[in-house]
Amino acid sequence: MNEYDNYFLPLADRAEQEELFKKLIDACFNFYSGETRDGKVLNYRPPEVLKEIAAEDLPIDGTELREAISTLEEQVGKYSVAQFDDTYLAFPDSGNAIPAIWADIYSKFINQNLIAVSRSAPIATFIEIQLLEWLRQIIGYEYKSLRDIHSLSEVSGMVTTGGHMSNHVAIMAALNKTFPEIKKGGLSCLTVQPAVILAGAISHYSFSSALHHLGIGQDALLDARSSNDYTTNLEDVERLLTNPPEGKQPFMVVGVAGNSRTTSLDDLSGLSALCKKYNVWFHTDACHGGALLFSSEYRKLLARIEESDSVSIDPHKGLFAPYPLSFVLFKERDTLTKFTRYESEVRDGSSWDLGYITPFYGSRGFESLKLWLTIKTLGMRQIEQIIDDRQEIAHRLSKYIASSKFFTILNDMTFYRMVFLYYPEDVKQKLDVMELTVPQKVAIKRLIDQYTHAINEELYVTGSLCLDEFKLDDLGNRTKLDSSEKFVVMSVTVGNPKQSTEKINVALQKLFTLCEARVSEFEQAVNEALKDDNINEHKPGALYGPAGW
Amino acid sequence: MNEYDNYFLPLADRAEQEELFKKLIDACFNFYSGETRDGKVLNYRPPEVLKEIAAEDLPIDGTELREAISTLEEQVGKYSVAQFDDTYLAFPDSGNAIPAIWADIYSKFINQNLIAVSRSAPIATFIEIQLLEWLRQIIGYEYKSLRDIHSLSEVSGMVTTGGHMSNHVAIMAALNKTFPEIKKGGLSCLTVQPAVILAGAISHYSFSSALHHLGIGQDALLDARSSNDYTTNLEDVERLLTNPPEGKQPFMVVGVAGNSRTTSLDDLSGLSALCKKYNVWFHTDACHGGALLFSSEYRKLLARIEESDSVSIDPHKGLFAPYPLSFVLFKERDTLTKFTRYESEVRDGSSWDLGYITPFYGSRGFESLKLWLTIKTLGMRQIEQIIDDRQEIAHRLSKYIASSKFFTILNDMTFYRMVFLYYPEDVKQKLDVMELTVPQKVAIKRLIDQYTHAINEELYVTGSLCLDEFKLDDLGNRTKLDSSEKFVVMSVTVGNPKQSTEKINVALQKLFTLCEARVSEFEQAVNEALKDDNINEHKPGALYGPAGW
Repeated sequence: MNEYDNYFLPLADRAEQEELFKKLIDACFNFYSGETRDGKVLNYRPPEVLKEIAAEDLPIDGTELREAISTLEEQVGKYSVAQFDDTYLAFPDSGNAIPAIWADIYSKFINQNLIAVSRSAPIATFIEIQLLEWLRQIIGYEYKSLRDIHSLSEVSGMVTTGGHMSNHVAIMAALNKTFPEIKKGGLSCLTVQPAVILAGAISHYSFSSALHHLGIGQDALLDARSSNDYTTNLEDVERLLTNPPEGKQPFMVVGVAGNSRTTSLDDLSGLSALCKKYNVWFHTDACHGGALLFSSEYRKLLARIEESDSVSIDPHKGLFAPYPLSFVLFKERDTLTKFTRYESEVRDGSSWDLGYITPFYGSRGFESLKLWLTIKTLGMRQIEQIIDDRQEIAHRLSKYIASSKFFTILNDMTFYRMVFLYYPEDVKQKLDVMELTVPQKVAIKRLIDQYTHAINEELYVTGSLCLDEFKLDDLGNRTKLDSSEKFVVMSVTVGNPKQSTEKINVALQKLFTLCEARVSEFEQAVNEALKDDNINEHKPGALYGPAGW
Repeated sequence: MNEYDNYFLPLADRAEQEELFKKLIDACFNFYSGETRDGKVLNYRPPEVLKEIAAEDLPIDGTELREAISTLEEQVGKYSVAQFDDTYLAFPDSGNAIPAIWADIYSKFINQNLIAVSRSAPIATFIEIQLLEWLRQIIGYEYKSLRDIHSLSEVSGMVTTGGHMSNHVAIMAALNKTFPEIKKGGLSCLTVQPAVILAGAISHYSFSSALHHLGIGQDALLDARSSNDYTTNLEDVERLLTNPPEGKQPFMVVGVAGNSRTTSLDDLSGLSALCKKYNVWFHTDACHGGALLFSSEYRKLLARIEESDSVSIDPHKGLFAPYPLSFVLFKERDTLTKFTRYESEVRDGSSWDLGYITPFYGSRGFESLKLWLTIKTLGMRQIEQIIDDRQEIAHRLSKYIASSKFFTILNDMTFYRMVFLYYPEDVKQKLDVMELTVPQKVAIKRLIDQYTHAINEELYVTGSLCLDEFKLDDLGNRTKLDSSEKFVVMSVTVGNPKQSTEKINVALQKLFTLCEARVSEFEQAVNEALKDDNINEHKPGALYGPAGW
């Protein structure tokens, strides 16, 4: 026996093993209870301090095994943010479904490798394929019993690590379907530049990145207008389909079912009809909105999603699973077969090795087990109830924020996210009826940015309330400031099924209190700004959060 | 309180929560102890039966929460394969380091999102950056204290989900460095086809896939010869660098530090010198071989790896971490900066959001915590001891298999994997001195394939011993059968640090016993085959395992 044997499973003494893992689980619970975080959503430290905490020479000598647990608590958990906390409203990624967490823990112990069946993932392969059929059914695609799936070429989707990858794979599939010759000869054998149409102002940054990474080039992104409600403007999409720029051939339109900024939901039905008319691939990015498919009431907001050629869904966003878990599904079953090196084995049923049809993924773990076990344990009916309740809470939240009269709200809460900025109604009403010069409007806009950020930042760094913050165009000109620049905004999202209107209202009191305290100061600053003859040119400020990327 | 509240963390009653998670951990331990698997490395079932076990209508009604645990055991664990088992020798992915498992479990509870610092991953961001510096040091690249890293543009690598992605990102980086114009205009603005040189016979399938996915086209793979020892042939690489096919411009050479079939180690020093001479990017795929960097003795086999422009390393392979965990590192620090949309923020230190510089990954979990905690807890000195001991075991294993005289061994065990086929020495010696016709050699080759597969399959389906199986060219013609086709081979790998020579020798007895029992039957079949005038044309058999893809 070597000295290091005690650092590896299994230990000779199962009682000792149990005792050690019990300590670890206790530490995990301490993070949940808030003990590790001094009772705050986040024990905030600025980046320079975090660097200091993490800075360490390469460790030559190790530690006792059990010391690893205190390391996790003292060095990691203590300065981590709790996305499931009652006072966390920035993103929906609560990750707190017990069946999902259990599946994740179990999958670490069994450590199956979904690249292949034999020697790697015997049952896991088939559970994953079954789950993909459930997802087909949930989307509204034609679906089958697993018993009637006779080859890999019928497997119509894949697990990825996030929406970025799911969208990437969808674009790649559309590209290869439209231009099959690139498999061997590459893009340079084309005489046109393949192009993708989407509404840039609300699209996720992953699309522009994907065009770069796929070798199409970012020039190939055709930017459609967004409507005032932060959805893709259909007329503008049709304009681009009819008259694409010289040399560019659109092969795909992206619809967004819940964009990352406002979670507004595109008119999928209209977009799908356009795509049919012009014979291009229709992809729906439902990374957020996919959660609504579990509700018969709210899935109406995604009407005709089943006509999409591809759909991406992220259960690690609105479906309570820990990272990573995303899916891309294809209407046409044998889409992924185009990416295999072994087409005959994939078609004739002689191999069930998923690695043959999962571009970008070879050896990989059993992440899909999380969603499988969540669906089995909660059941579709109960998940529907959760989604319905959550929508109800989100709508009440939006009314509550509106009723406070401190804010201009930039979007209507159609789904689970609302975006607003600090602009007390009393002040706004006065300004709305004034004839402001452009520099005056810019000055006021800058004050709004400044106060919005200051209030939100104070809540964040004190660990009392975590809202999101990013930059967004006021597409509907609800501020009436005619700004051509993005505003700094704060935003709330309801993700956690354990949230309740009562808890949220308590949490928001902290926001309202801060807002109230600043009203007169803000009003005074506005008055000063209106007087100021020497208004500077605008300098764009620092970037904020991923929702706005 | 809703009915479903009890399915989400935290539970109101911490004692109940503890009791439930204790049950789950017990189930995990039952998989480790073998109880769940009926004491076998795998409770084998053929694909049709596995389909039957996994087939299930979309669950409308859920179950009690605690039923999820028995579901995991009875439907999943029972038919899963144990890669850490004493009788598992197919792949090195043991995934049984306790600090890595703990980090994984803890990271599911804290569920940090490495896309950004604020509101998503405050301390996790900096721990990951620190770990990337440790990896630079381990590779032999210039490295810094975290305190001296002042902007994201100095962060020189990224976490990915597997070697496939790490290699993909490396090619993409090399491509964009050589042809920066493609970022905007795409590959079609080039007048040459960018090409990658590697030894096809030993290369991982991910490279050819990557060329397809990147839009370069699979035609752009320039296939260098492999030497008889399953390493990349340097003269042939130089030939391709000097005289690439018309219209193709090599921009990258791939060296393999431990190919997935034989884990033979390329002459990195020689390849690196060639790449310098011809000014092309040198990538080292050290997904397997990276483990050797932890040993001062065995890292000599990877001499001058630090001259590679990029290196990929998979701790979920030879470094005992559960899936997923892979890294790609770049010698030049600001390589990933080329993929950002926000270059000034990345360069000026105003943002630490890793999502800006991680192509393909937006929201993602804290997978890197596994390696960080493993290095801290075991310490470099102890990991070195593990690697050294494991090499020693691998070498003894290789001698033991050779001494059995049942096999022709196709590679020398330079690292941790050995490949062999059933060809008893007594029979071989007789045949070696005969003048065989080509059809006779083909017939014998086919018998070897058949017996190799039959023996290995019996071990596998009875759950008594799990060796790998795939197809491989006999590059050194050790069988003396001059086969132009690949052989069916079996293979052993030593990954698990808890393996020992004693346990392996016990396990291999099952192989030897089966081999022994078949000698006379095999000999008789060979004699029949030599007589047979009517030898059929060869039909290639089914594909085998991922190592041979």
